[in-house]
Amino acid sequence: MREVEVKALVMDPTQNMPVLLLRDLQSNKVVPVWIGQPEATSIAMVLQNREFPRPLAHDLVKAILKDLGGDLDMVVIDSIQDSTYFATLHIRDHLGKTHEIDARPSDSIAIALRLGSPIYVSEEVFQVAAVEMPPLEDDREKDFPEDRFRAFVESEMKLADFKKFVSEGGV
Amino acid sequence: MREVEVKALVMDPTQNMPVLLLRDLQSNKVVPVWIGQPEATSIAMVLQNREFPRPLAHDLVKAILKDLGGDLDMVVIDSIQDSTYFATLHIRDHLGKTHEIDARPSDSIAIALRLGSPIYVSEEVFQVAAVEMPPLEDDREKDFPEDRFRAFVESEMKLADFKKFVSEGGV
Repeated sequence: MREVEVKALVMDPTQNMPVLLLRDLQSNKVVPVWIGQPEATSIAMVLQNREFPRPLAHDLVKAILKDLGGDLDMVVIDSIQDSTYFATLHIRDHLGKTHEIDARPSDSIAIALRLGSPIYVSEEVFQVAAVEMPPLEDDREKDFPEDRFRAFVESEMKLADFKKFVSEGGV
Repeated sequence: MREVEVKALVMDPTQNMPVLLLRDLQSNKVVPVWIGQPEATSIAMVLQNREFPRPLAHDLVKAILKDLGGDLDMVVIDSIQDSTYFATLHIRDHLGKTHEIDARPSDSIAIALRLGSPIYVSEEVFQVAAVEMPPLEDDREKDFPEDRFRAFVESEMKLADFKKFVSEGGV
């Protein structure tokens, strides 16, 4: 397994779908994961340290875990089948017992970011899906200052470059 | 408090927004609640006894409650402020202690329907928001056979009548 960080959340202009770029902490490769708009909005809120006026479903998961004494040890993106990624929430109850819950990567990551839990990609997924990180204009900063995040989200050209790279055999 | 059932999920053609009609079990009045499209989709799946190929966030809440020994005693739509409804999840932990979690009505209802938990509307909300149930062509059946549900969802005219009723002082 490889621990990853959410490097960017960008719009794929060709499919008009949000894409998460998950960067392997041990290399310069990223795993792109296409996700739905509602989940992207939920993830963007956390990345930008913003909150909706009302809690989202992922905020409810956080509150329920806290109230019931559960911890999210990690989320793992385990496998790909027919272009669909599968993930698992690893939740530890108040007795220390671990429960594995089948989930979509988008929900898993939205929840992990809220709880500060680590995100892993299985070696199988990494081998199939990882590509070199597309070059960014300014890659000195490794975190997400809001200005840079917004610039990146709005930069469709960079994603087009990324898609081109992928279509040319990056995967 | 008044216990309600999800009587219908319809599209409001004037705002292009889904509306839940919550019927008071003790009268013929309904409380309309406007909700977002993703939550409406999640609720429609349960009403139609259908499942997405992959779990939604509300399915994760159900799985987490089960694994951590929590129960959803009820959800309550407590108040309205500036046209926004507020709801609360009443969750009982494995020790029998109750926790109240602030939530949107749409998430609350999507979760309650998955767990078979009762849904209540506070007397305050009921007095402000309840209207007479708009007449339906076929009101003999109280449950949601799929055909009838689909017909109702697609019946924009009925909702227009309903909106007209509301705008004419039903509320």
